[in-house]
Amino acid sequence: MPEFNAPLRDMRFVLHEVFDAPALWARLPALADNIDADTADAILEEAAKVTSHLIAPLNRSGDEEGAHWVYGQVTTPVGFKQAYATYIEGGWVGLSGNADFGGMGMPKMLAVQFEEMLYGANSSFALYSALSSGACLALDAHASEELKNLYLPPMYEGRWAGSMCLTEAHAGTDLGIIRTRAEPRADGSYSLSGSKIFITGGDQDLTENIIHLVLAKLPDAPAGPRGISLFVVPKMLVNADGSLGHANAVSCGSIEHKMGIKASATCVMNFDGASGWLVGEANKGLAAMFTMMNYERLSIGIQGIGCAEASYQSAVAYARERLQSRSPTGATAPNQIADPIIVHPDVRRMLLSMKALTEGGRAFASYVAQQLDLAKFSDNFRERDNAQSLVALLTPVAKAFFTDTGLESCIHGQQVFGGHGYIREWGQEQLVRDVRIAQIYEGTNGIQALDLLGRKVLADSGVALRQFTGEIRHFAHQPDAPYCAQLFDAVQRLENLSDWLQDQAATNRNEIGAASVEYLHLFGYVAYAWLWARMAQVAKKKAAKIRSFMGRRWPPLTSISSACSRAF
Amino acid sequence: MPEFNAPLRDMRFVLHEVFDAPALWARLPALADNIDADTADAILEEAAKVTSHLIAPLNRSGDEEGAHWVYGQVTTPVGFKQAYATYIEGGWVGLSGNADFGGMGMPKMLAVQFEEMLYGANSSFALYSALSSGACLALDAHASEELKNLYLPPMYEGRWAGSMCLTEAHAGTDLGIIRTRAEPRADGSYSLSGSKIFITGGDQDLTENIIHLVLAKLPDAPAGPRGISLFVVPKMLVNADGSLGHANAVSCGSIEHKMGIKASATCVMNFDGASGWLVGEANKGLAAMFTMMNYERLSIGIQGIGCAEASYQSAVAYARERLQSRSPTGATAPNQIADPIIVHPDVRRMLLSMKALTEGGRAFASYVAQQLDLAKFSDNFRERDNAQSLVALLTPVAKAFFTDTGLESCIHGQQVFGGHGYIREWGQEQLVRDVRIAQIYEGTNGIQALDLLGRKVLADSGVALRQFTGEIRHFAHQPDAPYCAQLFDAVQRLENLSDWLQDQAATNRNEIGAASVEYLHLFGYVAYAWLWARMAQVAKKKAAKIRSFMGRRWPPLTSISSACSRAF
Repeated sequence: MPEFNAPLRDMRFVLHEVFDAPALWARLPALADNIDADTADAILEEAAKVTSHLIAPLNRSGDEEGAHWVYGQVTTPVGFKQAYATYIEGGWVGLSGNADFGGMGMPKMLAVQFEEMLYGANSSFALYSALSSGACLALDAHASEELKNLYLPPMYEGRWAGSMCLTEAHAGTDLGIIRTRAEPRADGSYSLSGSKIFITGGDQDLTENIIHLVLAKLPDAPAGPRGISLFVVPKMLVNADGSLGHANAVSCGSIEHKMGIKASATCVMNFDGASGWLVGEANKGLAAMFTMMNYERLSIGIQGIGCAEASYQSAVAYARERLQSRSPTGATAPNQIADPIIVHPDVRRMLLSMKALTEGGRAFASYVAQQLDLAKFSDNFRERDNAQSLVALLTPVAKAFFTDTGLESCIHGQQVFGGHGYIREWGQEQLVRDVRIAQIYEGTNGIQALDLLGRKVLADSGVALRQFTGEIRHFAHQPDAPYCAQLFDAVQRLENLSDWLQDQAATNRNEIGAASVEYLHLFGYVAYAWLWARMAQVAKKKAAKIRSFMGRRWPPLTSISSACSRAF
Repeated sequence: MPEFNAPLRDMRFVLHEVFDAPALWARLPALADNIDADTADAILEEAAKVTSHLIAPLNRSGDEEGAHWVYGQVTTPVGFKQAYATYIEGGWVGLSGNADFGGMGMPKMLAVQFEEMLYGANSSFALYSALSSGACLALDAHASEELKNLYLPPMYEGRWAGSMCLTEAHAGTDLGIIRTRAEPRADGSYSLSGSKIFITGGDQDLTENIIHLVLAKLPDAPAGPRGISLFVVPKMLVNADGSLGHANAVSCGSIEHKMGIKASATCVMNFDGASGWLVGEANKGLAAMFTMMNYERLSIGIQGIGCAEASYQSAVAYARERLQSRSPTGATAPNQIADPIIVHPDVRRMLLSMKALTEGGRAFASYVAQQLDLAKFSDNFRERDNAQSLVALLTPVAKAFFTDTGLESCIHGQQVFGGHGYIREWGQEQLVRDVRIAQIYEGTNGIQALDLLGRKVLADSGVALRQFTGEIRHFAHQPDAPYCAQLFDAVQRLENLSDWLQDQAATNRNEIGAASVEYLHLFGYVAYAWLWARMAQVAKKKAAKIRSFMGRRWPPLTSISSACSRAF
């Protein structure tokens, strides 16, 4: 049974040493009283306990057992219900939720660390609450005060969960053609009818209620994406005092048999004149739903990092124990029948690739979270606006690049195990199966790439892109910035390619889609290069201090701060 | 349920039009009477029927049911036993086997096409006979006449199967440390004791007997790989007249729970004083086993191509049917709710990548097979010798590059399906799971890369490499060779990198392992580039003829030979 340990030291390195998040929190009034370095560390330590000891041990068994569907009811695998009850006691679902409705109001920079732990421990388990947190965000942003008062407190508490009902059998990427209808009733509610597929957590036995956010069309709605409205449709109807009433006309028709995330119920949801309430304005539902989708896109990106971290932990432990053949430069364990395989350069190549990609991803997720915090909490209009542009630009990169490199990492981790990597008991193959979905759902990575290149770069004439590359150039101009020449070169290439594609697209619209995935990968590597250099800068300074402290003798690798060994 | 259709036209294109195999067969005396273009086509058509109609329909059900192990006996999934009985009636197990012992004596160039169909139809099913064919090859090359007479005829017939018992729990890549012992008996046989793991088809219910080829150590054997001997150990003892006697002391202790190839039984095999007979010389078993291993390495490479072809067929069909969004250049199916997704450039990018990789792989496998045929059948000593060097050089490339690009292709195929790619019923996720093992077993792809760079290139001082690059240069010097400048450049890069690595390795042995996987990928792409250019050369000529025939009007894409549309 593989073990998972939340990478606390690595997370603190990013939060405190690379981004100096406590300094940012101290200057943002909404956060200053709420959080500081010590509180953040305490929360992360508690999160590490919950994810490593309560949730991770259910990962293998959940995969083997899977979710069950019997007579329209979903039951989760053995242990999930009890663990979920303990889990929500910590208030984790509302970690970065609005404090006015019972959320903890913590910064996103902290929440992304927690999300990584949760996905690393158990992706299926993580999804049950990831959808709740995102649904809360959309309700908080777009619903009436009445709906917010009714739904948000039990959702932040985790007693009720959320779901996201977009896809129909004939309409996945193309939401403009959905058929689910919403008929207005005299009492201001709506009657929803239609069928949705691929609904994560559409039914489960973990929570008292499930709050479905459903896209549907009003009778007089215009065709296409501008005719879609968003509704809140609870599984159990909610009385005015917040107590539960009758069951709503919502049912789970079946669950899917999948490659992975088998403990997460992926549901067909049928709405047969179900009662729903409009969220936001009529026909503007897609924009409102994007609040949730963008939240989930970053979250699903983080699934890629979490799985990669879990795979790395398991692979590096195996590589230190498994004895096979001798080091090419002579035996390192002459008293044993063979050397541990970590001595072999190709094994090291795989492990170091995983480590580099995971650390780049963690830093990038933290950077996007920092921008989300600025966009939400800054009292400076320009700063909020700048941050918002960066979030829009970088969210598709985060979703697609974290998950593409997440699969790559998990495949390396599996390969390190040799034949045992293919055997279920060892856990590596599950990570490959579980992480694979993250490239597909929440908008395929091809769709993310189109969003990045078509909408966020070209349609914006490269304004947000220049804002981002400007930040990289600013870093590289520092006298002690490592790899500055390479960074200037990388940024220039990204800008040149963007300009070239702008020209190409002017005469042939097909060029955007043909180039977009490769473009996103270049973008991702440039962003990681910058963040690797930032981490190296910090690590080098610390290493220099330690050398000076230890009398200028370079200490053995095991005795210096883990910060020194991480980058480059 | 996905359909599989053997890509007959594409295979004929490679065999007849690109390599002109019939001309080669006509000049090799051992083949001239056996095979010509028409016979080859007839065999391929029969193979297509067997694989597409008999074996492919068991692929999904075999995955869902898996192999069973009850009280030491393995049973294969429903339908396998009956299909296997029909399958062996065609003599397919002995397709390229020695005709003196009942094989069909067909060229390997034909056999690799059949192997691709078999893996594309059903990788698990394919493995049961792939091991038999390889075991026959090793017995034919190294066993005494007595053993060959006893074992080969029923094995070629398919009534008996073969297995390959190398790995032990503590010894995978590192076979020098195996512990299975063979004690000589007075009657010339040996008593084998030990436990082997990961034995594909170690037990099954398809054949009357299973002939295990087992690596073990004699009591006085030197330590390490030079102290390993090869034994033939039948499941059922064989009387002198070929009839079956008592059960041997061999048992299947359990089967593995795996990520994929679930219908293939991966067995723990226990030998408890089992009767075995020495194959070849004492202590030279590893070299003898390499006859089988090299056969299996090419075969497993072809698993990568077969799975990729199956994934492509399914993905392109889905992309033509699934309606979603509009083409970026305007609706192509204005009467439908959306355009088929094949109009989207990113979907085309994925499909064309798959197609290019699969066709490159098929041509490369055919080229290696051509060299195997020359090495076996040529009456010219130099030609045999040259061919043998190329086989040694290219086998690790074939095994690793076909399977690395095979996984890449299957992941593209799954991605084309969007959410449905993750659902088991659609078949794409099974191909990803099934093809993944091919990068691991038969020597991990990291081991193949070490073999290529360390042993086949550097230890050989680049002699075989120059032989291969010389052939590419020879092609590129032709006046009508397409992409000749790019080919010269690619070959030069490969040679320069090889020289540079030779220098690096002189001072640091770690450089070989650190660079080997990337080196193998460069090698593979250069080889594919050459074969793509060869295919383009042929296709261009045919296209020119067709244009001239049709009055110099460029015909619509659907009406020209599929040969014209395939390359570049």
